[in-house]
This record gives sequence, C-alpha cells and structure tokens, in this order.
Amino acid sequence: MKKVDISKKILSENDKYAFENILFLTERKKLCLNMISSPGSGKTSILARTIIDLKDKIRIGVIEGDIQTDIDAERIRATEAPVVQINTEGACHLSAIQISKALKELPVKNLDLIFIENVGNLVCPSAFELGEAGKIVVLSVAEGDDKPAKYPAIFAKSKALLINKIDLLAGGQVDFDIERAKADAGKLNKGIEIFPISAKTGEGMTDWYGWLIKAVEKNKVQQ
Amino acid sequence: MKKVDISKKILSENDKYAFENILFLTERKKLCLNMISSPGSGKTSILARTIIDLKDKIRIGVIEGDIQTDIDAERIRATEAPVVQINTEGACHLSAIQISKALKELPVKNLDLIFIENVGNLVCPSAFELGEAGKIVVLSVAEGDDKPAKYPAIFAKSKALLINKIDLLAGGQVDFDIERAKADAGKLNKGIEIFPISAKTGEGMTDWYGWLIKAVEKNKVQQ
Repeated sequence: MKKVDISKKILSENDKYAFENILFLTERKKLCLNMISSPGSGKTSILARTIIDLKDKIRIGVIEGDIQTDIDAERIRATEAPVVQINTEGACHLSAIQISKALKELPVKNLDLIFIENVGNLVCPSAFELGEAGKIVVLSVAEGDDKPAKYPAIFAKSKALLINKIDLLAGGQVDFDIERAKADAGKLNKGIEIFPISAKTGEGMTDWYGWLIKAVEKNKVQQ
Repeated sequence: MKKVDISKKILSENDKYAFENILFLTERKKLCLNMISSPGSGKTSILARTIIDLKDKIRIGVIEGDIQTDIDAERIRATEAPVVQINTEGACHLSAIQISKALKELPVKNLDLIFIENVGNLVCPSAFELGEAGKIVVLSVAEGDDKPAKYPAIFAKSKALLINKIDLLAGGQVDFDIERAKADAGKLNKGIEIFPISAKTGEGMTDWYGWLIKAVEKNKVQQ
C-alpha cells in the first residue's frame, strides 16, 4: 500500500489558495497581516484600538476567525471598520480557502490594510499560510514569559511580537520578565520587532502604529 | 477514487490506544485526569500546588505534554512527584499512544492519581481521548469570560472547570464576569463542576481538593 503524507497533502492544497491570495493582494497593493495568539491575549482589543486610533491614517478591514460566535466581529463592527466573520465550526485554524472567500466579501479597494484575526491558538495557525504578507504574534503578560521557548514556531515566523497587557505588570500581580521573552523570541527570529503594549491603557501603542504605518507605505511603494 | 475521511481515521487509531489506556488504568484502579487549557492559564502552577498541598492524602504523578522544552516537568519535579515529559515536537495535542508509553515509565503502582498536562491549546486536545477518566479545563480570568461561548467543545466535555488567577480580579485590572463564564459553561454542560481559584494565593483551592479527594476515593471503590 502506498503511503501518503497526509499533513503535507493538506498543506499543499492550502498553499495553492494562499498563493492565489498573495496574487490578489499584491496586484491591489493591499497589505495583509495574520494575527495569531492564544485565546484571550487581546487580539480583538488591539485591533479595535488600532482601527480607531489610526482611522485618519490607514483604512483597515478585518477578517475575523472564530470557532463559534460573532462576539469579536461585533466588537470590530463597533469601530465602523468593515469586517467579515468566518466561523470554523470546530477547526483550530483559518485556511487559505476561507480567506479567499472573505477577501471577495470585503470592500478591498477601499482599504490599505487587512488584518486577519486567526482562531485563538498558539500552535496550529502557525502552520497554515493564508497569503498574508506577515504574521503578528500576540502574547499577554498573563500567559508567562516562557511562551516563546515553549511554542517556538509562531515566534520564529512572525514579523512582530506584541507583548500585551503590560498594565498588569504595574501592580506586581503578574510575574513576567519582558527581557527574557524578548531574548527568547530574538534567538528564534533575529528580525522580529517587539512591542510591549497595553491595548487597555494605550501604553506602547505609538511604536506599534509607527511600524504599521511604515509597513503600509512600504507595501504601496515596493510593488 | 474512494474517499477516506482522514480525521475519522486518525481519531479511530488514537481511540484504539485510548481504550488500552482505560483498561490499564481501571485494572489498577488509578484515576487519570487530562488537564486542558490555553497556554499560560496556569496548569503547571495548579498541579504543583495541588501536589504539595495534598502530599499526605493523594499520591500524584504527572505526564507533561509540551511542544518543546522540559520547563514544566522541572517545576513538577521540584515537588518530588514522579513526572514523565513528552515533547510533541510541533504537534498541537497529546495522543493516546504517547500516553500509553508514558504510563509504562511512571511508577503507576505507587500512585493514586495521574494528571496529564496537555499541550497548551484550548481547541485540538479536546478531540483526542487519551484514556483519561475525565477532562479538567482551566481558564484564567486574564483570558476573558467569553471563552466558554467561543471555544465550546472543551467546556462541553470537561468534568470540572477551574477559573484560575482570581487574585487578578481584586485590583480591578482585569474584567471578568465569573457568573457569565459559569452560566455559559453550564449551558454547554449541566454536570460541570466549577471552581474559581488562585493557584498563586491558594484562594478557592480547598473546594478543588475536596472534589479531587472524593473523585480518587470513588474511583477506588467503584471498580
């Protein structure tokens, strides 16, 4: 009996659509970033605040991935940004074919930047290319500073790491050594940009916005 | 071409080993609980504190599942409990064959209770039976009270829900409505036992210990 490497086959089917998405996005000079983290690290809060604070500078649209519910999409909708909800019905990551359909529902021509908020999962989404220009990994300080060492794949692949909820460090209730997390992420990925932020208080967000604005501008010029 | 349902096939191969593990454990009257959560919700801290606080009452061993590193196993080893480390090398969940091997490495006959600490992932591990008598889901308040609604599978399948890090609620820095999380988990699973705890301060741990001691006793009598 011929052996088939199942995981390779699923990935290559996914990559076909990912490649189509790359073509779709680069032809239109639209930047697309795939945001990945554990459940509850604050992806939606970061996106909502970013959309509002940058509304006069970057036109942002969002593709929301969730196993169930449209709780996150509702929060994005409240910012008045266009949003498309994908419910994966149990699946642990978004796939490129879902993004391909969602891109056709978004008013892409009116946008500069499309954020994909992946399913809350620090493991599986890192293995599936969606056609994005880059991945953004979010880690909340409540999760612990050992996460880059313990879940290396996503830290190795991301363009930027947002260390969120740094407001929790002030009270001394949460132990998180930012230097350790930075060092471990840097070992895995020399080029990774690291932004300690609080989407709640706004601390550190300006640096993240600066990076984002530059990435959007660079994307328009280069292609 | 005949279509094969790949996910069903992988699951049924897993279930064969899960069934063997059930036989192994029930013959020896050993309780086995499979602890599942997002990365950083506090599984290892809960286990370490539980082992120390119950050391005169229950003999606990641990199977540690991690993608990489033995950071968690080291923390368990410091409590002097026997521990076996499984590194999944990228895989997003433990499988029953890994548990079958680990059970042979643990000094099972000297134990009352075996905890499996699964890979940090609120999605995939819920689909893979390991031969455990029950699943324990851990949710930290820092992750948000919407998680039972957004990640229903694991809440529907668990015997108990530990709402951890409740010490963070005192300072008012974290918004988490315990009643909402309880109500949503209860809708998914009428029988689920819910314990708000702090593995850091010890708050609420007594009720969890009481439930655990009763579960170990019941397991010894019933079989």
